[in-house]
Amino acid sequence: MLIVKKFGGTSVADKERIFNVANRCIEDYQKGHQVVVVLSAMGKMTDVLLAQAKDINPNASKRELDMLLTTGEQTSVALMAMAMDSLGVPAVSLNAFQVAMNTTETYSNARLKRIDTDRIKHELSNKKIVIVTGFQGINKYDDYTTLGRGGSDTTAVALASALRADACEIYTDVDGVYTADPRIVKNASKLDEITYDEMLELASLGAGVLHNRSVEMAKKYGVQLVVRSSLNRTEGTVVKEVVKMEKMLVSGVACDKNTARISVIGLEDKPGVAFKLFNHLANHGINVDIILQSVGRDGTKDISFTVAEDAADEAMEIIERHRTGSLKCSEMEVEKNVAKVSVVGAGMMTNAGVAAKMFEALYDANVNIKQISTSEIRVTVLIDEKYVDTAMNAVHEAFALGSN
Amino acid sequence: MLIVKKFGGTSVADKERIFNVANRCIEDYQKGHQVVVVLSAMGKMTDVLLAQAKDINPNASKRELDMLLTTGEQTSVALMAMAMDSLGVPAVSLNAFQVAMNTTETYSNARLKRIDTDRIKHELSNKKIVIVTGFQGINKYDDYTTLGRGGSDTTAVALASALRADACEIYTDVDGVYTADPRIVKNASKLDEITYDEMLELASLGAGVLHNRSVEMAKKYGVQLVVRSSLNRTEGTVVKEVVKMEKMLVSGVACDKNTARISVIGLEDKPGVAFKLFNHLANHGINVDIILQSVGRDGTKDISFTVAEDAADEAMEIIERHRTGSLKCSEMEVEKNVAKVSVVGAGMMTNAGVAAKMFEALYDANVNIKQISTSEIRVTVLIDEKYVDTAMNAVHEAFALGSN
Repeated sequence: MLIVKKFGGTSVADKERIFNVANRCIEDYQKGHQVVVVLSAMGKMTDVLLAQAKDINPNASKRELDMLLTTGEQTSVALMAMAMDSLGVPAVSLNAFQVAMNTTETYSNARLKRIDTDRIKHELSNKKIVIVTGFQGINKYDDYTTLGRGGSDTTAVALASALRADACEIYTDVDGVYTADPRIVKNASKLDEITYDEMLELASLGAGVLHNRSVEMAKKYGVQLVVRSSLNRTEGTVVKEVVKMEKMLVSGVACDKNTARISVIGLEDKPGVAFKLFNHLANHGINVDIILQSVGRDGTKDISFTVAEDAADEAMEIIERHRTGSLKCSEMEVEKNVAKVSVVGAGMMTNAGVAAKMFEALYDANVNIKQISTSEIRVTVLIDEKYVDTAMNAVHEAFALGSN
Repeated sequence: MLIVKKFGGTSVADKERIFNVANRCIEDYQKGHQVVVVLSAMGKMTDVLLAQAKDINPNASKRELDMLLTTGEQTSVALMAMAMDSLGVPAVSLNAFQVAMNTTETYSNARLKRIDTDRIKHELSNKKIVIVTGFQGINKYDDYTTLGRGGSDTTAVALASALRADACEIYTDVDGVYTADPRIVKNASKLDEITYDEMLELASLGAGVLHNRSVEMAKKYGVQLVVRSSLNRTEGTVVKEVVKMEKMLVSGVACDKNTARISVIGLEDKPGVAFKLFNHLANHGINVDIILQSVGRDGTKDISFTVAEDAADEAMEIIERHRTGSLKCSEMEVEKNVAKVSVVGAGMMTNAGVAAKMFEALYDANVNIKQISTSEIRVTVLIDEKYVDTAMNAVHEAFALGSN
């Protein structure tokens, strides 16, 4: 069997944890499996490097930031190879150049295009554990790129797909995917299985266990994932296309506090205004969520939408810049103390009433809904950030997701 | 003009020094020159990485050590590019893969074979300052290698040669090459010029300003070097093929305390014994210096020689291992409290009496000579380590090398 195992930064934060990971990989190796390990940078190393860069140049180019950040994973993989070697198992570390991990051109947020597997296969055939830098790639200019948030998960899935691996295990510091964040909902229970689509909705809603790009890629290439803890032996959660029939209606409740609502009031009511607004934002890489358009006063219209809270100021500046030109409006507002709460479940597709049940639970808990958005397998509401815990618990309870 | 400027680890140890280096490079750039900068890892970073590796695996493979160490220079060059950028000058950092800095296979002590200049020339033609990682290369397996001690100097010289640079400036924390170590000889004076050969003798004698491999390469490819301080504007020392006619007889006095003398007593007096002895040592990469062979008792012979002090124990073990086989001898001894003191000067070739003058100075200073070795431009004596300062000052005085 060929197994790809990915470990995040906290799993390799110090010597003891590095050896813990080394031992877990060696267990598989000694059962006769071929093992490919994908690692993130150790602990807070990426943050330390970013702070170092910011101290030198607060507006450092993304190209040079990637050049700096990629040293993080290279450090992890080299130390891991040394650890395995000291345990008597031959191992070799490889960076993005050595694998040839080809990506698009974009620095700091590149997409993987093609992974050469020759070097990895060669090392595997030499009975080595192969340790690959996550998060990083190289573009057509032979420059380092990084894959953005959750990039190491994407590396692992892409490698599993390219190598036609038999398993792709994503190790984190939690036991798997839960029906809700256990820090908020005390009796949240661990899911044994979840579909790609549900995981995608949860990931994009800040459930934080897996990044949505890695799940998208796993779905696209049919890579079955297991999310489990590097700290214990609990079974974890399997992420796959179809899960067992007796599946619950709703898999989980998620929230995203990194949300801000921007309202643009008194826009001209003529065709193309919404297009221009969102096009300006898209050109700056700002993702827009839950959009509401309503009729304003005196033949104008109002548009409100949510963006990630940390992109809100930039979004406001962009709109401001076009206010005298293509985006005439009377007022602009930003609310940062809002959050999204969502219920997610593949079962929703064939069951009406999920939204109604959610709204009822929120009403009973006295939580006001500011805006609503739905997909086939998700209902999301925008609420005041201070009611997040109340809302999460109320909805979790209403769908009887608790473990007891 | 195309200028290659190399800065060592202390010159880029912190933010302030990074900006100091950035500014010095930008001065040349703004005069219209093309600037290629070679950097070492920041301050003690290489030592920190080595300690981290040792903690994980005291016998880490050299391949993985190189993988780890190369993150050091990559960090320096990325931060330097950010610093220059923040000063309004476009800069780009390149590592050994991006340049294509091809070396021999040997990890931890590779030799540069061929440097591709396309990428660097391309970036220079785009009006960028190009910042290259020193010390590192890649071998035919696409693995990182490092160039051993003084490797960044070698990178700079090789780049200057490959790019046919008009100047190659090696910045250190001293003003240039001195007639003697100013910490030992108070009135040591800075040399304006020195020949490659003299510099080679001084480098191999631990003068420490330039590593001999970089000087060898500079001599071979006719790259004129300037050694100067990154901390002030002093002119520095030019290292070149021929220096001006009124050159002094002797350029400098150097010492090397990292020396041990090994004596092998009572060896069989038959052909091939010396060959076997030194061959065993060479096979373990141990360099042997000042050799003395003398007739011993009862038809045997004694051989004594010097090695680097930190290689002495290994050398003793190697001989011990062959004592019952090819290297039968009655006794072995190691003396670690010895040092080499040398006078170096191209003028010696055409002037007799340098050795005599040196021996006289040492005699007057009451310093006993244990062993002697000479080359065309050097006289070296082995003495008790505790007399080094006395000997250095006496010889420096005898040749009137002082600045006053």
